[in-house]
Amino acid sequence: MATHHFHPTRYFNVIGTAEPCLHLADGDTLVTDTVDASGLDAHDVAVAERPNPMTGPFFIEGAEPGDTLTVRIDRLTPSRATGWTMSPLAFTVLDPAAIPDRPAMQRAVWEIGGNTGTVRLRDAPKGLEDFTPPLQPMIGCFGVAPARGQAFSTATSAQNGGNMDYRLFAPGTTAWFPVSAPGALFYLGDGHACQGDGEIVGTGIETSFEMEVTFHVLKRTILWPRGETMEDIFTVGNARPLDQALQHATTEMVRWLGEDYGLDARAASHLMGQVVCYDVGNVFNPAFTVGCRIAKRWLRPV
Amino acid sequence: MATHHFHPTRYFNVIGTAEPCLHLADGDTLVTDTVDASGLDAHDVAVAERPNPMTGPFFIEGAEPGDTLTVRIDRLTPSRATGWTMSPLAFTVLDPAAIPDRPAMQRAVWEIGGNTGTVRLRDAPKGLEDFTPPLQPMIGCFGVAPARGQAFSTATSAQNGGNMDYRLFAPGTTAWFPVSAPGALFYLGDGHACQGDGEIVGTGIETSFEMEVTFHVLKRTILWPRGETMEDIFTVGNARPLDQALQHATTEMVRWLGEDYGLDARAASHLMGQVVCYDVGNVFNPAFTVGCRIAKRWLRPV
Amino acid sequence: MATHHFHPTRYFNVIGTAEPCLHLADGDTLVTDTVDASGLDAHDVAVAERPNPMTGPFFIEGAEPGDTLTVRIDRLTPSRATGWTMSPLAFTVLDPAAIPDRPAMQRAVWEIGGNTGTVRLRDAPKGLEDFTPPLQPMIGCFGVAPARGQAFSTATSAQNGGNMDYRLFAPGTTAWFPVSAPGALFYLGDGHACQGDGEIVGTGIETSFEMEVTFHVLKRTILWPRGETMEDIFTVGNARPLDQALQHATTEMVRWLGEDYGLDARAASHLMGQVVCYDVGNVFNPAFTVGCRIAKRWLRPV
Amino acid sequence: MATHHFHPTRYFNVIGTAEPCLHLADGDTLVTDTVDASGLDAHDVAVAERPNPMTGPFFIEGAEPGDTLTVRIDRLTPSRATGWTMSPLAFTVLDPAAIPDRPAMQRAVWEIGGNTGTVRLRDAPKGLEDFTPPLQPMIGCFGVAPARGQAFSTATSAQNGGNMDYRLFAPGTTAWFPVSAPGALFYLGDGHACQGDGEIVGTGIETSFEMEVTFHVLKRTILWPRGETMEDIFTVGNARPLDQALQHATTEMVRWLGEDYGLDARAASHLMGQVVCYDVGNVFNPAFTVGCRIAKRWLRPV
Repeated sequence: MATHHFHPTRYFNVIGTAEPCLHLADGDTLVTDTVDASGLDAHDVAVAERPNPMTGPFFIEGAEPGDTLTVRIDRLTPSRATGWTMSPLAFTVLDPAAIPDRPAMQRAVWEIGGNTGTVRLRDAPKGLEDFTPPLQPMIGCFGVAPARGQAFSTATSAQNGGNMDYRLFAPGTTAWFPVSAPGALFYLGDGHACQGDGEIVGTGIETSFEMEVTFHVLKRTILWPRGETMEDIFTVGNARPLDQALQHATTEMVRWLGEDYGLDARAASHLMGQVVCYDVGNVFNPAFTVGCRIAKRWLRPV
Repeated sequence: MATHHFHPTRYFNVIGTAEPCLHLADGDTLVTDTVDASGLDAHDVAVAERPNPMTGPFFIEGAEPGDTLTVRIDRLTPSRATGWTMSPLAFTVLDPAAIPDRPAMQRAVWEIGGNTGTVRLRDAPKGLEDFTPPLQPMIGCFGVAPARGQAFSTATSAQNGGNMDYRLFAPGTTAWFPVSAPGALFYLGDGHACQGDGEIVGTGIETSFEMEVTFHVLKRTILWPRGETMEDIFTVGNARPLDQALQHATTEMVRWLGEDYGLDARAASHLMGQVVCYDVGNVFNPAFTVGCRIAKRWLRPV
Repeated sequence: MATHHFHPTRYFNVIGTAEPCLHLADGDTLVTDTVDASGLDAHDVAVAERPNPMTGPFFIEGAEPGDTLTVRIDRLTPSRATGWTMSPLAFTVLDPAAIPDRPAMQRAVWEIGGNTGTVRLRDAPKGLEDFTPPLQPMIGCFGVAPARGQAFSTATSAQNGGNMDYRLFAPGTTAWFPVSAPGALFYLGDGHACQGDGEIVGTGIETSFEMEVTFHVLKRTILWPRGETMEDIFTVGNARPLDQALQHATTEMVRWLGEDYGLDARAASHLMGQVVCYDVGNVFNPAFTVGCRIAKRWLRPV
Repeated sequence: MATHHFHPTRYFNVIGTAEPCLHLADGDTLVTDTVDASGLDAHDVAVAERPNPMTGPFFIEGAEPGDTLTVRIDRLTPSRATGWTMSPLAFTVLDPAAIPDRPAMQRAVWEIGGNTGTVRLRDAPKGLEDFTPPLQPMIGCFGVAPARGQAFSTATSAQNGGNMDYRLFAPGTTAWFPVSAPGALFYLGDGHACQGDGEIVGTGIETSFEMEVTFHVLKRTILWPRGETMEDIFTVGNARPLDQALQHATTEMVRWLGEDYGLDARAASHLMGQVVCYDVGNVFNPAFTVGCRIAKRWLRPV
């Protein structure tokens, strides 16, 4: 149950098989630095290239193909006082006929937190002078090496995780990933100080972080990422269109309800039909992300 | 500001142009009965045919094409002690490869409320013996006559509303519809005692209701349904795939933020990028429904 | 086996239930005028409104709900010397990121045929001075009243046909429609002098026509439009996205191969797997159209 | 302009960066063996694993990132007397409601060619006794290393090519791929003796081949695969849903018409609007494939 501090000197724009930067044991905690989506570090210095440079890969001892790696997000601390977003809305969320009237793309800077627990847009336009949404740190991109020696850009996501940009990947959440390579080969980065559903401007508030996570290996097999918060369990599907992402997440939830809660397909449907929630993680990246979520209050582990 | 009580004797399976059953003034309240999705009334007697037989159409004086009809949902009272659902999960939410293992379709009966404020599955399968989700009444299908003399089945939805199956259409919500015919020609029905996101078993808990709603005419034009709750404003897109429904809803929200809150496209994107929420109304009907929602706490009317 | 000549004085922008303009017997032939998609007649005079004003509805004696109406397209003769198209490419066929560079919409005029059998763009831009594609007349929009008293805009299409914009609906083709209303209530119009796959500029070469078609009633039930040319049989699906349109067409073809050619699902898959062809009818309208086509040389009627 | 004969001893299930098996010069011809989609060689011996084991990678001298590699398909000779397919139709092409009635998956064997130029199903079911479609060899999966060190399963396709299963990749066609790695790193395999549009049974007639191809390097940049036959030029998009694949292919064609044929966006739309053809390559793999095709008779190189 050691805690490891790691300061990266090399970053990755694909999630695949590479030389591990550090080995950790099952149960260990990692404290590490991540740069923002464009490669800016805590000093606003460009140290890596787009998109979403990753810290890693971390080799978790005992993780074998077919296992599950759980990653408890203990703490996400922004490591500089500003972050940035893009505007306007992404092509993917507008009626195509509205695209020609879209203003030009611009980068905006946000001031982060301090002791206010909020973020604030610098040079806010008319109507947003008082707009101070909460500081809600989350991990935009993290995951493990995909199956069969594949390697995917950190712009996208798949069964192995990746650039899901799902706001539930926040402190207090434990994320689950299906292991396909010995040691899992875990990467993380692309932290956001805040983000609405869907990442519909193509970014959250992008900034550098110190991230603290704790690993465990489960000797069980999952097909898509899963997660757990204080209140909920959830599954994640990554695909286009949103319909297919939702199908992956829903089908994975049916499996989970069978495995851990003793519900067959019919019972699962009765429960999900009345209490399921769907979240749109991102509707911007090459693969869209949908979360299928159920409150634990409705569940009885068997 | 009269209150009208109306007991239907005739029901409609399309939303279009038909002889009004009642005329009401701007500001009036309607108390009326609705049958369930299969046409069963408060006595469990079949009085109408599938799908989703509607009560109406109601002619609202002063509503002209190009106006907006707002419908405040004052009260939804189930008028019998049971409702029904289908199982298992719909084809639309499962990975196609999982469909062959899907059990046969079955109808289930739920006991509704009384003074417990919950619903309960009769003959609950293993694992659901204690499953008593809250009674959360909502309107599955309502809307106004569509443009150009069109007439749409109550199985589906479009810009005029219809079978959206969106759980936010609940007591306390005011729904907005774009008027295309003189008098708007409003229909309602298909009440649910409870429903999760997406209506993923193809039904909510279907039952008959006494519904109370209040009408107002706004001399302004909208393109897609909108709504307002105590906490939120929201817009609704109806289309396939989910991506397109989300585009309609998002684009309508951008229009609303410009009209009423003084935000241009760039300012709207800064706000929505950090605080927008998306809801999956239904992912079952011929047109899927997505809600785009923003908390009023972030908005300043101009 | 009479031939009826009909000159419309009234046009329709929805396909639904309306007073028939003419009754014809099973086996009769109709010769009638149609105006172009914007309502211009043979004299370039605006006599009807957008979109796609229809001639009809024609009541075919003996056609009952559950039957099939076949419409042999005998002749499509342009009734004026010009047609028009729009440019540039539609939003639906471009990568969204390419839309901002799209030039403004413009209407262009084409000279039609004479005895050359070609069409020619008036004021052709650089590179198209010699571009004279063949005159290939087709029907953009035709069909019968939909089920349950619905009525659909002539901008879109569904199981009853409508605005399919599929280039195989040309002279020599017999189209099949599922009958849902007594007399079928057949409408036609929106002729094109030429059109590529997909109707990707949002129009074909739109012009007025004299159309000649012959009706027969089949006492059999189909779910989606079908058709037959000299070489091929085909089925048509209308939906979004293209994937779903293709699923409807493919599933209807499997039914047809079973009904008329004695192939069970497995045999149909062996045949279709090697020789099926897919056509993109339109990828522009609210519902997209996909044709599933098989050469008759591979088929043995039973 | 040498001809190289290469007999593989190692196969790849991902297309990415690996040690080249052979270096060839610009203009050289390669004659090599490929195994079928399941890894069976010319002797029906399993020598590699699913899916679609590739021969390669071949390093083409002079090919640099940003260049284009053209691959002329000179000859595809089946190297054994049988191939195999699966039945019934894939989940992706059926209405979901039709899936429960789908028969179980089965493998079928086809006899290939000899001097008849046809293929024949062994143990043909009723109705297919005389079904002998033509031997039409094609390459199911080929392409070059993707950008940024990514590596993709041979089950899918992307901008770098891959498992496109497009029947136009046949003898006489020259395929173009965007080069992202020094030497391009070209892979090929997954030959089909025949296949309909869409690869709708999930396979073509899968068999081993001797393939002969000739390479050239073009000092120009493309974004998606392109191709040329005697009659046509075409572009290829790979994505889900089909709509997006079609958008990629169409947008790439607009670029090509500008680069080589002097047509601006408006002129390109006038031409494409009347004469474009769309082909459905596959509607089965993780990424679907659409071809956008134009007959050369309509084009004048500038």
